[in-house]
Amino acid sequence: MIIKQDTELKRTAVTMEGAASVTMGIPIGEDDGSQNMIMRLFRIAPGGHTPYHTHDYEHLVRVVSGRGAVLDAQGVSHELSLGQSVFVCSNEKHQFLNPYTEAFEFTCTILNPNRG
Amino acid sequence: MIIKQDTELKRTAVTMEGAASVTMGIPIGEDDGSQNMIMRLFRIAPGGHTPYHTHDYEHLVRVVSGRGAVLDAQGVSHELSLGQSVFVCSNEKHQFLNPYTEAFEFTCTILNPNRG
Repeated sequence: MIIKQDTELKRTAVTMEGAASVTMGIPIGEDDGSQNMIMRLFRIAPGGHTPYHTHDYEHLVRVVSGRGAVLDAQGVSHELSLGQSVFVCSNEKHQFLNPYTEAFEFTCTILNPNRG
Repeated sequence: MIIKQDTELKRTAVTMEGAASVTMGIPIGEDDGSQNMIMRLFRIAPGGHTPYHTHDYEHLVRVVSGRGAVLDAQGVSHELSLGQSVFVCSNEKHQFLNPYTEAFEFTCTILNPNRG
């Protein structure tokens, strides 16, 4: 069993093209012994966003703090706040944004791409 | 894309032997189109607990509200509060408890047992 507090996490800048003011930490990953799934913690600073992109894996997203928005494949923006979960299908275009004045944090769990 | 608010969730009592005062909702599951992973939301009322048990799948746990505790395979209790994540390996004995006076909620993500 591994128990981690967010404040212990090493956070690295997301440098993918189309990302702005986003960092990522890994509350639960391969280094913790997780074989099948990885939980990432994203923080988007005010004015920042992830890329508006697609990929072939599903996202299980959970708002952790602050407020933000998600842009769907039709370009419609949906406000996000505490108590909300977002499921993004594989190959569905999406973008997370923070148009607000405080940091927006969410966890995003994916299948471990290296699983056996 | 599916966006859900916890207040919309149908919550059912967990009737597994050894569970007390626990309900479960499904923020992200098969009905939402999620093929590979399922996010469950558990709520343990004050004095309640999940079974002290093992199973052959991993848990990715994230505290959502309140405070609680997790008992590890050695019988050691660890306090849990906001900002914490818990990884439970497959076949590792564990139990979540709420010895406090407010509801304790956490998400627990698992592989979809019905995935292809």
